[in-house]
Amino acid sequence: MNIQNIVLIGSGNLATNLAFAFKNAGLNIQYIYSRRESHARKLAEKIGAPHTDSLTRLPRNADLYLISISDAAILKTASELPGCKGICAHTSGSINMSVLGDIFKNYGVFYPLMNFSATAISEFKKTPLCIEGNSEKTFAALKQLANLISDNVREMNSVDRQIVHLAAVFACNFTNMNYVIAEKILEKNNIPFDLLRPLILETARKVQKSSPAQLQTGPAARNDKTVIETQLKMLEAMPEFKELYELFTKHIQNTQKTL
Amino acid sequence: MNIQNIVLIGSGNLATNLAFAFKNAGLNIQYIYSRRESHARKLAEKIGAPHTDSLTRLPRNADLYLISISDAAILKTASELPGCKGICAHTSGSINMSVLGDIFKNYGVFYPLMNFSATAISEFKKTPLCIEGNSEKTFAALKQLANLISDNVREMNSVDRQIVHLAAVFACNFTNMNYVIAEKILEKNNIPFDLLRPLILETARKVQKSSPAQLQTGPAARNDKTVIETQLKMLEAMPEFKELYELFTKHIQNTQKTL
Repeated sequence: MNIQNIVLIGSGNLATNLAFAFKNAGLNIQYIYSRRESHARKLAEKIGAPHTDSLTRLPRNADLYLISISDAAILKTASELPGCKGICAHTSGSINMSVLGDIFKNYGVFYPLMNFSATAISEFKKTPLCIEGNSEKTFAALKQLANLISDNVREMNSVDRQIVHLAAVFACNFTNMNYVIAEKILEKNNIPFDLLRPLILETARKVQKSSPAQLQTGPAARNDKTVIETQLKMLEAMPEFKELYELFTKHIQNTQKTL
Repeated sequence: MNIQNIVLIGSGNLATNLAFAFKNAGLNIQYIYSRRESHARKLAEKIGAPHTDSLTRLPRNADLYLISISDAAILKTASELPGCKGICAHTSGSINMSVLGDIFKNYGVFYPLMNFSATAISEFKKTPLCIEGNSEKTFAALKQLANLISDNVREMNSVDRQIVHLAAVFACNFTNMNYVIAEKILEKNNIPFDLLRPLILETARKVQKSSPAQLQTGPAARNDKTVIETQLKMLEAMPEFKELYELFTKHIQNTQKTL
């Protein structure tokens, strides 16, 4: 089976990025659905596709129904899509593929491991796409589609996908919170965050070729007690981050010991 | 005063990167010192400069003695450099400029806000250089030197520098530890870390133009209790990281509330 016509369920950041990637790859976005009509319209106008806020109005003959909405809404939305013949897949890191099994004959997962903004990212080609299918045929169709938009396609079952999602929460979401904390520390002292941007980029760049375990630097890695004590004292004015500082310092020191 | 002849005290990652940057800018590395002769020799051979492991053997007529060694050794090393006429500056984020005041007439700080590896980074030009001098003349000389190797030179006093260093510990050192944790989570399940690299780079790229507070995503930011509970359950096999997960989740939720 060759996927050509896609119904996109959702209009958030991920759905938007997928819509552009599919369109640029020459695929047909047959319809865009969002429970909010204005959201569906906004994306549909950008893509040049019809849109609706009614699931019952969606065509029944698409090759793929791609559900890219909040985890909590996936099951309910899927259950309102009866009679569809094509594949149904969701794009979530956390939801087991099997939730679609009672509703569809052909179903799977199409999970891009990336943090998308509302504006399309430049390099979708490098985004890892983790694919799962309930049958070899479904998997092959989803994989073929994935290969059209990314150079980094992998088969991954639901258990591994959850693990990858957890690792991504540390590497991306919690890392961004570290940036937020750094920004707050600077802000409190009227120092521009701009100063840290080159360091942040370099820290992420370094890890592109090496294992992060080999790259650990800083007062904790050096066991520089004078600096650690000074910094803990400075954080007394921001007690909410002191606990985090202590925990990281402990973990870094434990990790260094086992290297 | 124009700095042309530099004695470099130290041969670590930062000293190495500075040596290359100075050499490429046409400055003269007059001597390289390290307390380990083999380390001094290694760097000196790369740069084409004489080297020594004896402080007393260093020339007394350099324009700048740049001390780029561990924080704990700065004061002792500086005190063994008597009779030098030039400026003495250290490169530490944490040490107050004043520690050099009893020993030198002209002294300052030359602090690059970057995480250096043993191999020279490609873009030293973008590295913020935070400069401090004990007099206008010293400051001007250090600033002129800094401008030769970086497009991002700022005056910064010792108090602000300590704050920037603390913020950098969160943004760089603790962030790298997040990468380590992500790698450990994947490793435990035989999933390659490679999968996360594009996401890590994109997370750092996003913050180059926006405030991280506006970019926070993930289960905690969405208050997705189902995912949070599932992930906490997964972390029961790695209790050392569960506490960190809980703390980050709390902080992200508190921050979201105040946006």
